[in-house]
Amino acid sequence: MGGAVEASIEEATRALQERAPERFNRVFELEHSINQAHIEVDEACVNLLARQSPLAADLRFVVAVIKINTDLERMGDQAVNIAYNGRAYLEHPPLKPLVDIPKMAEEVRLMTRKALDAFVRQDRALAQEVLNCDDSVDRSKNEIFKELIQFMMKEPSVVPTAINLILIARNLERIGDHATNIAEDVIFLISGDDIRHGGFKAPQASD
Amino acid sequence: MGGAVEASIEEATRALQERAPERFNRVFELEHSINQAHIEVDEACVNLLARQSPLAADLRFVVAVIKINTDLERMGDQAVNIAYNGRAYLEHPPLKPLVDIPKMAEEVRLMTRKALDAFVRQDRALAQEVLNCDDSVDRSKNEIFKELIQFMMKEPSVVPTAINLILIARNLERIGDHATNIAEDVIFLISGDDIRHGGFKAPQASD
Repeated sequence: MGGAVEASIEEATRALQERAPERFNRVFELEHSINQAHIEVDEACVNLLARQSPLAADLRFVVAVIKINTDLERMGDQAVNIAYNGRAYLEHPPLKPLVDIPKMAEEVRLMTRKALDAFVRQDRALAQEVLNCDDSVDRSKNEIFKELIQFMMKEPSVVPTAINLILIARNLERIGDHATNIAEDVIFLISGDDIRHGGFKAPQASD
Repeated sequence: MGGAVEASIEEATRALQERAPERFNRVFELEHSINQAHIEVDEACVNLLARQSPLAADLRFVVAVIKINTDLERMGDQAVNIAYNGRAYLEHPPLKPLVDIPKMAEEVRLMTRKALDAFVRQDRALAQEVLNCDDSVDRSKNEIFKELIQFMMKEPSVVPTAINLILIARNLERIGDHATNIAEDVIFLISGDDIRHGGFKAPQASD
């Protein structure tokens, strides 16, 4: 499922960079398998809870998977949104100056890869790296917004094209947010620490 | 927690409609209590799973709560995003023609209220009503986008103001999406049917 989500983000952003709208079709195909995996993973978790009544670290693992599953599915949705906005964008001639969507896309792809690797390897340091990327993605998005707004004010005819890029930047930002959520769940899963909302330590499940 | 989320959406959208930026402060206060509730609810669910090993309908209830908890927290985040975008919006004179953000806000508030009521009363028909609202919210958003794009092309000086409204429309749309997710979880919780991704029936947890 993680692989399909990564592939989906990759296809959506490459299609955009290479101005190859046919690559968006692959995003829609991948969405179908992501959605099926989403339901199957949920069901497997519920069955596992019902049949094995896991405790402590095992229970945290299952609860983390239920949440990560939701984030992965929504990352797939965001890749689909990029495909829709990207199709509309590619109907117009490219915007110059080209804003730094490719850089932002690369940052977000890397965050996603690291979040998934952190989960597979249960690697807290790698999960922490994902959290550290968040500010840089936000800065990229703010840069893109600023540039596009100035450009639209100077050249009102580009408004429809520029709006598509603004929406794509938002889609990428959301994917980064989901990668951050996954990294937080990985840290919870490894350590039992709940670092969300400012990092205070929640009581342990295994008490 | 649901009440705080509803209040937060209410404050954020009223502040915008009444051009009363001081009301946004309440949104930030509410976010704090929503975030605390988010952690507490998660922890209560993990403890419940660990200590009681619930089965069948009880297990579905806990799993549904874990998911609904995440959606509620993200609805709170979206209300905060509306507050940020709204603050920026209110720094400029109001846009005329006024696009139908108030109507969209009302639709989304109603969806949220119904999704929470459906959960509390375990009312499948009400959850279904929430799902039926989704198309209308999408139409409202598309209308708003179209109007604002045309307006920006005619009056490039309004671009920064209009972009804020576009982002607010997106924030409202996301709140509606989360309300839809909650309604789907309520239906799963009541019936064991997984109606996501086109409505096929997943195997039961209680087999």
